[in-house]
Amino acid sequence: MAIIKTEIRRGVYIDSAKLMKLQRSLDDFASILDVGVIMGTDSNKELLSHIGLTSPEIMAAKPDELVIAIKAADEKSADFALSKVDDLLAARTASLDQDYLPRSLETATKMLPGAEWVIVSVAGRYAAGVTREALHLGKHVHLFSDNVTVEDEIELKKEARELGLLVMGPDCGTAMVDGFGLAFANKIRKGPIGIVAAAGTGLQQVASRIHQLNGGITFGIGTGGKDLSEKVGAITFLMALDVLKRDPDTKVIVLISKPPSPKVAEEVLKAARKAGKPVVINFIARAVTTLQDGNLFFATGLDDAARLAVDLVKNPPVMKGDEDLGLEKFTPQQKYLRGLFSGGTLAYEAQHILAGYVPRVWANAPINKENKMANSFESQEHSIIDLGEDEFTVGRLHPMMDNDLRIRRILEEANDPEVAVLMLDIVIGYGSHPDPASELAPALAEAKVNAKKAGRHLEVVCVVTGTDEDPQNFENQVTQLKKAGAFVDPSNEVVVRYVGRILRALAERNIVEADQIGKPVDLDQIKRPLAVINVGLESFSENLKDQGAPYIQVDWKPPASGNEKMASILNRIKQGSK
Amino acid sequence: MAIIKTEIRRGVYIDSAKLMKLQRSLDDFASILDVGVIMGTDSNKELLSHIGLTSPEIMAAKPDELVIAIKAADEKSADFALSKVDDLLAARTASLDQDYLPRSLETATKMLPGAEWVIVSVAGRYAAGVTREALHLGKHVHLFSDNVTVEDEIELKKEARELGLLVMGPDCGTAMVDGFGLAFANKIRKGPIGIVAAAGTGLQQVASRIHQLNGGITFGIGTGGKDLSEKVGAITFLMALDVLKRDPDTKVIVLISKPPSPKVAEEVLKAARKAGKPVVINFIARAVTTLQDGNLFFATGLDDAARLAVDLVKNPPVMKGDEDLGLEKFTPQQKYLRGLFSGGTLAYEAQHILAGYVPRVWANAPINKENKMANSFESQEHSIIDLGEDEFTVGRLHPMMDNDLRIRRILEEANDPEVAVLMLDIVIGYGSHPDPASELAPALAEAKVNAKKAGRHLEVVCVVTGTDEDPQNFENQVTQLKKAGAFVDPSNEVVVRYVGRILRALAERNIVEADQIGKPVDLDQIKRPLAVINVGLESFSENLKDQGAPYIQVDWKPPASGNEKMASILNRIKQGSK
Repeated sequence: MAIIKTEIRRGVYIDSAKLMKLQRSLDDFASILDVGVIMGTDSNKELLSHIGLTSPEIMAAKPDELVIAIKAADEKSADFALSKVDDLLAARTASLDQDYLPRSLETATKMLPGAEWVIVSVAGRYAAGVTREALHLGKHVHLFSDNVTVEDEIELKKEARELGLLVMGPDCGTAMVDGFGLAFANKIRKGPIGIVAAAGTGLQQVASRIHQLNGGITFGIGTGGKDLSEKVGAITFLMALDVLKRDPDTKVIVLISKPPSPKVAEEVLKAARKAGKPVVINFIARAVTTLQDGNLFFATGLDDAARLAVDLVKNPPVMKGDEDLGLEKFTPQQKYLRGLFSGGTLAYEAQHILAGYVPRVWANAPINKENKMANSFESQEHSIIDLGEDEFTVGRLHPMMDNDLRIRRILEEANDPEVAVLMLDIVIGYGSHPDPASELAPALAEAKVNAKKAGRHLEVVCVVTGTDEDPQNFENQVTQLKKAGAFVDPSNEVVVRYVGRILRALAERNIVEADQIGKPVDLDQIKRPLAVINVGLESFSENLKDQGAPYIQVDWKPPASGNEKMASILNRIKQGSK
Repeated sequence: MAIIKTEIRRGVYIDSAKLMKLQRSLDDFASILDVGVIMGTDSNKELLSHIGLTSPEIMAAKPDELVIAIKAADEKSADFALSKVDDLLAARTASLDQDYLPRSLETATKMLPGAEWVIVSVAGRYAAGVTREALHLGKHVHLFSDNVTVEDEIELKKEARELGLLVMGPDCGTAMVDGFGLAFANKIRKGPIGIVAAAGTGLQQVASRIHQLNGGITFGIGTGGKDLSEKVGAITFLMALDVLKRDPDTKVIVLISKPPSPKVAEEVLKAARKAGKPVVINFIARAVTTLQDGNLFFATGLDDAARLAVDLVKNPPVMKGDEDLGLEKFTPQQKYLRGLFSGGTLAYEAQHILAGYVPRVWANAPINKENKMANSFESQEHSIIDLGEDEFTVGRLHPMMDNDLRIRRILEEANDPEVAVLMLDIVIGYGSHPDPASELAPALAEAKVNAKKAGRHLEVVCVVTGTDEDPQNFENQVTQLKKAGAFVDPSNEVVVRYVGRILRALAERNIVEADQIGKPVDLDQIKRPLAVINVGLESFSENLKDQGAPYIQVDWKPPASGNEKMASILNRIKQGSK
């Protein structure tokens, strides 16, 4: 009959590598059937109970208590194993070529003054304190620990931003700097691709695929998976993006994130558009509506992101800025689009594409009901009106045959001082009006003249759908519209994206950038040869040793050796003495 | 002082082309300032009032009453214009080379027995009746009319499905058959691309772009914009897809839709996967999560759909069926995935990709909260567990370092008789376990053996993330896992899509196909040289004449000449006499 024996230790701190080692070693003793060595959290206790290791004593353990549970064939074997616990805990887990282990970060800094980075992997409840200490010593922090509160994360990151330092994490699995890997990291050759990732294994997967495709990286900067949440607001992500933007060795940037807050994702994209370099984006579960938008390249997955980045290094793309848009022609009041469509699908596609450029487009036939215009006869802000909708066609010819309604509306919209762009679709072919441009072009020209008289520039854009074999003469339609001053293209997407760029640029024209970057990260500092101070798991120091990077392992112990009651008393005394 | 004069005509039916002609002609008379000729719907009355043409008389008009409103400089001019209305209405609007205009569809059918198509563009309230008549004569119907109720649409389409006939519409703007265009249609060269579209101008845009790219089409089949709504359930769309699937001249299929019902979209994709040909898809506003899934190619827009289709004709892709999946190895009970991840991002990406293959995947760290597992320690249906989540790592090493938890879970999941696939990610590199495969591969092999003993096949798949320069030896990791019987790839996407195909195929294995096709459309009939009977707008006959296609214009009049009261009495008499 198997028995279960338990030992609970209060007020101790042992890192998780040692706990694993202990568990494995106990398991190796004779007649031991199963072993659980855990901190007494609810989730850990549930886990033990799930594998049949449970007792009232275990269930009563607290999160800061160490539980050693042993299932053995007999009591003697269990007791023997438990008697060996102290010896096993005393054994070292890593082999480091470091004679003296400093007890404090401060001492470590003096021993390795070139270290610009500190890895922190102590238990979550101590991690914020260690991180703050490192920031005050002027170090970038790779905060590997998880179980750190989001409040602590926000506070640390805000403080770091003011100091021009990166807090990568919490729960940041990986970073790659100067050809070396920190914490969980693959050996990736150096090259011209820089990666920022709120996605640890995402970063590892993309970096590994880049390496497999014969590419290489400058930096792989993890931020922790919550950085693109609404609460954290991409503080580290934006700082890291700014570093890669300024780094002359980084030619292509890759941005990866676990499912981000849509709002924060838009903020990041806005910053990315100003990078002046190609930026590949894979935000998991964010819908890809286009594969390219200016310097932004949207990947459909991690694999695709790696492939794209390597391709873009080999074939640098031609990227259009907003210089060609001639924004100075518009008055400060002009900002809105009025789209007057005859084709329902083209109107839908326009709404869909514009959603990537402006926050809201009203429509009489909206994709989402919440964007339905109050009144189809009166435009509001950005409006797209499908004049072929049933409401307009009872006892009246379709607007592809009869231009009357559109002409009236063109002249009306052009008089609105807030309108910047008029968009029309001209669909030719059998069934359509025999020469639509002959009626629409003069109306468009008149609209432009009226606007000009009022001191405004009205941008007119048209998509012409049809072929050279259609009865209307395709080229002639295009020519008439161009003569009236319109931007014309046969692709609805090309026209709508041109409109989108204008609307976005007009909206951003007057925004004074909030200074979200704080103090910029010192590029020279971050590009110095890597040296690291490691606080926590010794294996991370071992990895640095194996890679040949200078490191110092700190022999860190929690305040009052992990006895939280005592620590709290000490803390109160310290506070009182200030 | 301008005056407004109005004439209301009750119980008349005049087609909208004639109304437009009347409006334009009245507008041309001297001293006439503006003219409105409309049917008295609320929306039309609002429109007139919006342009300053309003009076109590107009506002009182009913939807079936014709309103002629004239704004003139003086009363005399208005009266003169109104006196010309009868003459203007008597004038013909089109020039057809047809001596005799039959009054009924039946007579028209006898005059042009080769006509397999009827275009219906009479006013919405009469359109269902005419369509039903055409179906009973064995004709496919291009139902151009709008303002037809969705109840009528459903009834007509269901009836047509039983007869093996297409009802294209209502509100179907365009169709392209045998090199000719019906209603609104561009002249597109013949070629190997077949298009089905619940999107009139979408079809025109894509067909035109294909032509511009030197491609050509077999069919362009419109279905009406509501065909992919939940109510209609893609009746015509699925029938048309089936036609293109069977048509040997169609090598590539393109499917386009206005924003579809997500559920109906999935049904269509399911049918498309069985087409045995490349199928390009652009459903507006449906998120593109992959560019290719087997024979399906997802376009980001109309333009992209055209480009893709032309490319696929030039470079026929290698398409994998499901033959390689070896489904026969699984028991009928086996259907679920258990994904045991160490990498959070990889787990998220797996969920995101699998959403395209199965209805629901549970997770302890779900993309959508509604998919959160009730208990992280107990899998349910398809489950993806990220063992690196905080709940598993308090006082315990990360699963990339410590395989213990995963090994226990592997053996547990393998005992579940409903589990078909186990997926793991193995992330190597610095920081990770020095040889994870040495512990995981034996556990996987054991799991497979246990399943086999119970008469099951357990499919095991692994993504290995890392590089050839990592300390673990990448190739050696892969080899160990393959030896244990696992499918292994360095791309998370490749592995997850392989899993997705298995899960989808297992789910569909036992489904007996509901017969959604009814009677298949007769391919020989639909591919005969085009001849058309046209009921409604004469200009559509004119277009056919211009294209050299045989046609018959029907001189259609509504029952009781549009007097609805009289029509209702006649109808009651007719019903009573049955």
